[in-house]
Amino acid sequence: MKSFNPPVRTLMGPGPSDVHPRILSAMARPTIGHLDPAFVGMMDETKEGLQAIFKTENELTMPVSAPGSAGMETCFANLVEPNDKVIVCINGVFGMRMKENITRLGGEAIVVEDDWGNAVSVDKVEQALKDNPEAKILAFVHAETSTGAQSDAKTLCKLAHQYDCITIVDAVTSLGGTELRVDEWEIDAIYSGTQKCLSAMPGISPISFSERALTKVKNRQSPVTSWFLDLNLVMGYWGKGAKRTYHHTAPVNTLYGLHESLVMMLEEGVENSWARHQSNHELLRDGLEAMGINFLVNEKDRLPQLNSVFIPEGVDDAQVRATLLNDYNLEIGAGLGAYAGKVWRIGLMGYTSRKENIALCLSALKDALGK
Amino acid sequence: MKSFNPPVRTLMGPGPSDVHPRILSAMARPTIGHLDPAFVGMMDETKEGLQAIFKTENELTMPVSAPGSAGMETCFANLVEPNDKVIVCINGVFGMRMKENITRLGGEAIVVEDDWGNAVSVDKVEQALKDNPEAKILAFVHAETSTGAQSDAKTLCKLAHQYDCITIVDAVTSLGGTELRVDEWEIDAIYSGTQKCLSAMPGISPISFSERALTKVKNRQSPVTSWFLDLNLVMGYWGKGAKRTYHHTAPVNTLYGLHESLVMMLEEGVENSWARHQSNHELLRDGLEAMGINFLVNEKDRLPQLNSVFIPEGVDDAQVRATLLNDYNLEIGAGLGAYAGKVWRIGLMGYTSRKENIALCLSALKDALGK
Repeated sequence: MKSFNPPVRTLMGPGPSDVHPRILSAMARPTIGHLDPAFVGMMDETKEGLQAIFKTENELTMPVSAPGSAGMETCFANLVEPNDKVIVCINGVFGMRMKENITRLGGEAIVVEDDWGNAVSVDKVEQALKDNPEAKILAFVHAETSTGAQSDAKTLCKLAHQYDCITIVDAVTSLGGTELRVDEWEIDAIYSGTQKCLSAMPGISPISFSERALTKVKNRQSPVTSWFLDLNLVMGYWGKGAKRTYHHTAPVNTLYGLHESLVMMLEEGVENSWARHQSNHELLRDGLEAMGINFLVNEKDRLPQLNSVFIPEGVDDAQVRATLLNDYNLEIGAGLGAYAGKVWRIGLMGYTSRKENIALCLSALKDALGK
Repeated sequence: MKSFNPPVRTLMGPGPSDVHPRILSAMARPTIGHLDPAFVGMMDETKEGLQAIFKTENELTMPVSAPGSAGMETCFANLVEPNDKVIVCINGVFGMRMKENITRLGGEAIVVEDDWGNAVSVDKVEQALKDNPEAKILAFVHAETSTGAQSDAKTLCKLAHQYDCITIVDAVTSLGGTELRVDEWEIDAIYSGTQKCLSAMPGISPISFSERALTKVKNRQSPVTSWFLDLNLVMGYWGKGAKRTYHHTAPVNTLYGLHESLVMMLEEGVENSWARHQSNHELLRDGLEAMGINFLVNEKDRLPQLNSVFIPEGVDDAQVRATLLNDYNLEIGAGLGAYAGKVWRIGLMGYTSRKENIALCLSALKDALGK
């Protein structure tokens, strides 16, 4: 067994995206204790940075010490109690995973389905809310990573509140890449990832909970099944001002990386980052369409940072992706679930979202397709 | 908000321990995709390296993508079903956490208690096994990080099998630092951490499951409550030979670090690492005893890598630790739970276990104590 030296790739898949060298450097700084006063100061800054990019004043805004899937589970495990009715919108893989979370926790999932590639239908959700007055939660994916479709989180959250539901929102792929306003849109519980539009390494998951959501957590009838994800305990470590008490050992170096990525995002400005993702999407779109390649998602609902496009007729999916990887060190994403073998997912997230990468991708793709 | 540059500490607490510069460098290598063929090859090597240091041929040997507490939860969440009787040994904080896992999962915990600082009593465990023939699992901590006591895992596991129980063993602090033989000792499910005797960064948790344990997982009556930790799903990504299917996004850079730490451990030789931890413990012990400082755990049951010593009469705990940290950049650990304010925990784990650190610690402690 020898030291591992990875190839240097350009990551244009659905995540991880390219990690900026500044963030890689930050990860390699000397590890210190997870209760060191210097570390605790960095934790406070990290919370403030996350509040700024989530656009929230929620006190409970912090990174969960595990990947986005665990961020999802943190929201459901803390908010869903056995027999709770939860309306869950499925328009791709991650809505399905939400449903899986609900049923494993003993909740009852009321499913609102939309075709993969479409946004969540506001009308269908309103009907489900009307039909299920005892429902307590509405859960949906803001940015469906399996298709690249974006849903109208603002409208869905306001609607949920009219029917006395709190909301759980998946923003793994949207945070930092497309408009997202937790407080203004009245999102109650939200989770994201670090390896998408924040250009940091995978492994931790920023979350934010409103007071309304926290109240539901505090008033639970049954304890949270997961000790590791129980926010009542986690907050003893991440809570502000309070004496920090040991819960689990935080992933110190990964948090260095997240901190640096937040510094960079605030230097750029969150709105500027959204605009950069949009304008680079347009460049890529124009190039792809000029090659006769079509998008899965209609323009209105399309995420600029994740471009799902149909694989042209007669083209060998695996072979093209292998050519890009082997000849150009370029990774693009395969389709997931219903779209496996039918679409490619081309990510333009975070540090990956740069003109030079678009030029590389278009040129390499032309070559691989023999155009 | 500015880039964070941590102070350079010597970490002689209960973990994280000092991360070797080779491992820090490995963490900063370029991120690649978690389904990249190059990454998949590294995953296979990581599994083999873990098998070598766990001393097991268990096919299910892999790192969980979250800290040691989540490794613990992976074992309990997969093996405990509602109403299962589980005998759990409590001789410190982590035995208590095991019990908490069991009850949250709907299991019934039968507690075998020993004084903090003592090893788990084999006689008491045998009595509990006799008294509870319907018990299915015996759970105990091999190396209790809250006290530095080591229990006789070999004897306890063989005993459990005589009574048809499978075993769950906490080896967070023992792996790589003290004798541990998963197959020879017949351990069924074991979890550890990377930030102790492996000298890697915190954030992931190596586990290993025997065939006997896997059979119990596969024959569950109810699904695992946690989607994220369900081994039936995780194995689709980490399973050998099989086509790797996406489950969650692996913490790529943290796994680079673990891989490098395994390369280093195998270069040194696991048995040599055990011997180094023992001989350095003896050096530190002699120095501390010469200062009139006494150990919490008797010599026979003492972990060489974690030295719990009584704070001398009249000494201000917090002030001494602050002096060490501020004047010497040296971190030692506070007492936990029942021993908060009464003991210090001085770690000599992994890369921290070096003569120069012992010299520093003894000298700085003399100064801080005014000796």
